[in-house]
Amino acid sequence: MSSRVRIKDVAAEADVSVTTVSHVLNQTPHTRVNEETRRRVLDVAARLNYRPNRVARSLRTQSSGMIGLLTEEFATTPHAGRIILGAQEAASRNNLTLAIINSALQADAVERRDDVAALLDRQVDGIIYATVFHDVVSPPAELRTVPSVLIGARDRTRRVSSVTPDERQGARDAVRSLVALGHRRIGFVANTTDVPATRGRRLGYLDALEEAGIEADPDLVAEGEAEAGGGFEAATALLDRPGERPTAIFCYNDRMAMGVYRAIGDHGLRIPDDISVIGFDDQEPIASGLYPGLTTVSLPHYEMGAWAVDSLVSQRDGDRAAGTHRLPCPLVHRGSVAPVGVSPA
Amino acid sequence: MSSRVRIKDVAAEADVSVTTVSHVLNQTPHTRVNEETRRRVLDVAARLNYRPNRVARSLRTQSSGMIGLLTEEFATTPHAGRIILGAQEAASRNNLTLAIINSALQADAVERRDDVAALLDRQVDGIIYATVFHDVVSPPAELRTVPSVLIGARDRTRRVSSVTPDERQGARDAVRSLVALGHRRIGFVANTTDVPATRGRRLGYLDALEEAGIEADPDLVAEGEAEAGGGFEAATALLDRPGERPTAIFCYNDRMAMGVYRAIGDHGLRIPDDISVIGFDDQEPIASGLYPGLTTVSLPHYEMGAWAVDSLVSQRDGDRAAGTHRLPCPLVHRGSVAPVGVSPA
Repeated sequence: MSSRVRIKDVAAEADVSVTTVSHVLNQTPHTRVNEETRRRVLDVAARLNYRPNRVARSLRTQSSGMIGLLTEEFATTPHAGRIILGAQEAASRNNLTLAIINSALQADAVERRDDVAALLDRQVDGIIYATVFHDVVSPPAELRTVPSVLIGARDRTRRVSSVTPDERQGARDAVRSLVALGHRRIGFVANTTDVPATRGRRLGYLDALEEAGIEADPDLVAEGEAEAGGGFEAATALLDRPGERPTAIFCYNDRMAMGVYRAIGDHGLRIPDDISVIGFDDQEPIASGLYPGLTTVSLPHYEMGAWAVDSLVSQRDGDRAAGTHRLPCPLVHRGSVAPVGVSPA
Repeated sequence: MSSRVRIKDVAAEADVSVTTVSHVLNQTPHTRVNEETRRRVLDVAARLNYRPNRVARSLRTQSSGMIGLLTEEFATTPHAGRIILGAQEAASRNNLTLAIINSALQADAVERRDDVAALLDRQVDGIIYATVFHDVVSPPAELRTVPSVLIGARDRTRRVSSVTPDERQGARDAVRSLVALGHRRIGFVANTTDVPATRGRRLGYLDALEEAGIEADPDLVAEGEAEAGGGFEAATALLDRPGERPTAIFCYNDRMAMGVYRAIGDHGLRIPDDISVIGFDDQEPIASGLYPGLTTVSLPHYEMGAWAVDSLVSQRDGDRAAGTHRLPCPLVHRGSVAPVGVSPA
């Protein structure tokens, strides 16, 4: 289909055999080409803008220089772009090209196998399988015929390496930072969906309370849908309950925090003077678009993408140990947190 | 690298030649294989889970079944994911695989050429070149050696087809919808960056005023950075100016609208009762997360991705006419617009 210059064009122009051109351009070991010929071939190749046929090379080396990224329902995961960027930049550093296939959400096992097979057909050097809503998955067995890594979930059989965000540590650090500023009545605006993030963030909240000797108070927890509307309703419920109101609210995610801001405003309270708020996800444009800017916990999507590619490269180079890795979720400080009972200037 | 079953394994197991297996599996025309042999080959291939080598096929057919998407600074364009999804789903419908390469923003011409060359090396069947901040680009000449399409910008030489959003029509329709509800003092919170969207949205705003016989009033236009903070400052300036205040504000984008909401709230005004607001971009989670939900203009990113792939397929099939296409930007109605001077129940 393309009108590209072929190796035989270079050979004809340089007046040598195709084999000689191949030896020169591939720097094939243990072959002898005299220096003058070598120079001439390189000059001609440069002048004709010849590029070796990567496909022919793939066939010869059984390596395509390409890795496949299989993502689950790209559009609904706000940070999928960061995973792709991390993977793409790491691939580029390793002279690899990233091919992306987007599996439909809840694609059945057969479709998943087909997607993996489509990548294997292209002789990819490795496959990254990214998912978002599961703790543990059973990836197609074909995945293990090449180096492979899971992002976002562990392999049920523990034979494929995986990398996931440490949701629990992220939530623990967020709530710890509130405790360190004197907060003890710390509310939690939780979501209701049964996904790993729900459980991890709730456990982290409880960890931080426990280590501070603060008894968990069910009256300080309210649930809602993981959107702005759900956050508004949950925070309204928290603030309308009888008894002392919370001095800080930790939110399941930034979208809920967006609704929590509105509920706090509707109650005539100010952030962070009257109530501190922390989100989770560091989802732009919410986190810096809210006023004041939202202190939140960042997910290591870019880092997971890059980690996955580096792991494929290690596996290709002989490292066969499968493991489960959690990457930390760092706290990002903006303007929504203040010491308890202290109004900033 | 992979431990895959090869065609010779199938041939050995079925006790036929490799050529026979190839003819059966490729349904090669004008070849004769008796029905019993054909069945046996298919059975063995299925039993061994044999998959034909796509790489070898690429070499033979000069077609890889793969198309390349070259994107500019993926991470900073909130909707790049929608372009990818549109392209990926259209590719899938056409039995093509999408490979994505992310060029650094402002990558120089040499790097761009290298990225195109990397895709050509893999014998891609076509290349989509997506950009965001330019009206017109000069893509590398190598792009034209295969079917190619630009997303988001036109080709300076008009030799490569392009697809862009109709920013002007989107803005015109938004402001028209305000005029239709009786608004005549329609403010514009504009951005300051010199990108195609800035010019198109401003022209659309002016178009709608002009066709309604409303004189453009510079006192109703305020500029700011295209973020929530810039929108807050611009709207504050608009609302603090002496004279009658606007009854509606059209915003350059949803992020600015987020700040406009806050400025309106700070002035003790309600949306949409006192002021209607329309954004642009339909950027989630802002658009549905704001209260009330933001009426805004949607960008056809998914559609542009799909259009680009369909265009590559047409080009591959012989259509060589390059053209410039604009896809419409539809108005998305939520809760931030009301007739002028009427408070909804």
